[in-house]
Order: sequence, then C-alpha cells, then structure tokens
Amino acid sequence: MRIKFNDEYYMKLAYKYAKLAYEKDEVPVGAVIVKNNIVLAKSYNLVETLTDVTAHAEMISITSATNKINSKYLVDCTLYVTLEPCVMCFEALIMSRISKIVYSVSDPKKGGISTQLKKKHKILISSGILQKKSLDLIQRFFKKKRIKFF
Amino acid sequence: MRIKFNDEYYMKLAYKYAKLAYEKDEVPVGAVIVKNNIVLAKSYNLVETLTDVTAHAEMISITSATNKINSKYLVDCTLYVTLEPCVMCFEALIMSRISKIVYSVSDPKKGGISTQLKKKHKILISSGILQKKSLDLIQRFFKKKRIKFF
Repeated sequence: MRIKFNDEYYMKLAYKYAKLAYEKDEVPVGAVIVKNNIVLAKSYNLVETLTDVTAHAEMISITSATNKINSKYLVDCTLYVTLEPCVMCFEALIMSRISKIVYSVSDPKKGGISTQLKKKHKILISSGILQKKSLDLIQRFFKKKRIKFF
Repeated sequence: MRIKFNDEYYMKLAYKYAKLAYEKDEVPVGAVIVKNNIVLAKSYNLVETLTDVTAHAEMISITSATNKINSKYLVDCTLYVTLEPCVMCFEALIMSRISKIVYSVSDPKKGGISTQLKKKHKILISSGILQKKSLDLIQRFFKKKRIKFF
C-alpha cells in the first residue's frame, strides 16, 4: 500500500511528537513543518524540560526549520500542530511568513486564531484533523495534573 | 559619585546592547532583565544573525533569565527594552509572569501593548525613558536600509 503524504499523514506525525511530550510530563503538543513533502522540523513542547515559557512546540519548529533551510522565512511551508497555536506562536508564525497552518484541537481561550479573529494575515488555516486523539491526549494530561483544560 | 541603580541606569544598559545590534546590522533593539538590582540577562535582537524571526531581544532575555534562575517564572523581575515589545514578545512576557516592563520607544503599529490595549494582564508598564536616543538609533538604522519605520 502506498503512503499518502496528506494532511492526515503529517498530523499523525505531529501527534507522535505530542505523545513524546506526554511521556516527558510536558503539556502534550507536537508540531512538524513541511515543505514540498519534506519534513523540515519535528518538535514537541519543552517548557518544563527547558524551564522556558517560550519553548512551545511551534517556536522550536520555526527555529529548527528556518535553521535547516537557512532562511528566516517559511514561504510555501505548512505547520501541523496538535493544538491551536497560542498568541505568541501565531505571531511568530505570521512573522515567519508561513503559508499554511493545520491544527488539530481548537483552543478558544488562548488560541491565537480563535481569540484574534480580526487579525489580518495571509496564512491558510485548517483545523480538526485527528481532533479526537489529540484532545484525548491533552485531556488525559490535565486530568493527571488535576487541572481543567477547557 | 555613587551610581544610582534606577530605571534610567538599566535602560542605558539596554541601549548599549541596542548599539551592539546596530553594529551587527540588526534592527537595533536591546533588552535587559533585572531582579533586585541583579542583571539576569542582557541581549539584543539577533534575527538576521540567527536567521530566526523569533530571536527578538526580549525572547532571548526571557530564555536567558529563566535559565539563570532555573525557574520558568520571572516574578519580581523587570524587563528594560529600547523598543515596545511586539505581540509575540508581550505574550511571552505575560506567560513568564514578569512583574514590570519598562520600554523606551513606543511602537503604535506592531507593539503588543499599544495594539492590544484591552488585553488583561498584571504587568506594571512604563515607557519613555531614553526615548530620544533609542528612537534616533532605530531611525538611523531604517534610514540606512531605506525603510520607513513609523
């Protein structure tokens, strides 16, 4: 059977990294950046490991991908991330000129897209892929921590 | 003459780092983070040097300061920065729980404080110190690049 390199394929890869975050007792968010079916960056949330509030999966992926292509702009790239990017990450993504963002679970309280609906940008946005699995992982994490996520 | 470790003193230090950025052909923004008169971090914008849109002076200072105190929170710390933090940096600062932000030049177009006036946060904010010098440095940079800043 041939592998289909579609949005679901790359979201599954992001989910794999979210699971690695979960195993490290980090808020389980995973991200990958892809350009022309080449994976430029794979990352997961490392806030606790690095004791650094800026170490979100998306930020690490932006730094990693721009380093790989030796350009600060991510034109024609797509970010796949298991949770809607927060305002910090969304702003970084706008500055990176990334072409497309695909996220799994929406975050109506802190999400940069949900909370800043009037923000002007040119990024294509898609959501909902693998939502049940990604949300289940996040909810399991917060249940373990006895914190309410939504 | 005894040195007064006041806001002007630390902003002059941030300005010194902004000048280092200027010399490196980076947008000249410098930042320092201080806690109880101890400088935890000194940094300047490194976007071009690192080909990384996330490498703003404030982000580098947050990572550096949290690393130094081995805590992800910057409670009782003050950030001194020569230009108003952008939305990305301001969000990172809110997440870091920093107590105070002192900036020199306002950025009505891109500044996280100016453009998100309704945003709820508990950070003390002060501006205007060393404004003329910081703004002059920024304007000189953009004039050299033939880009209009404001």
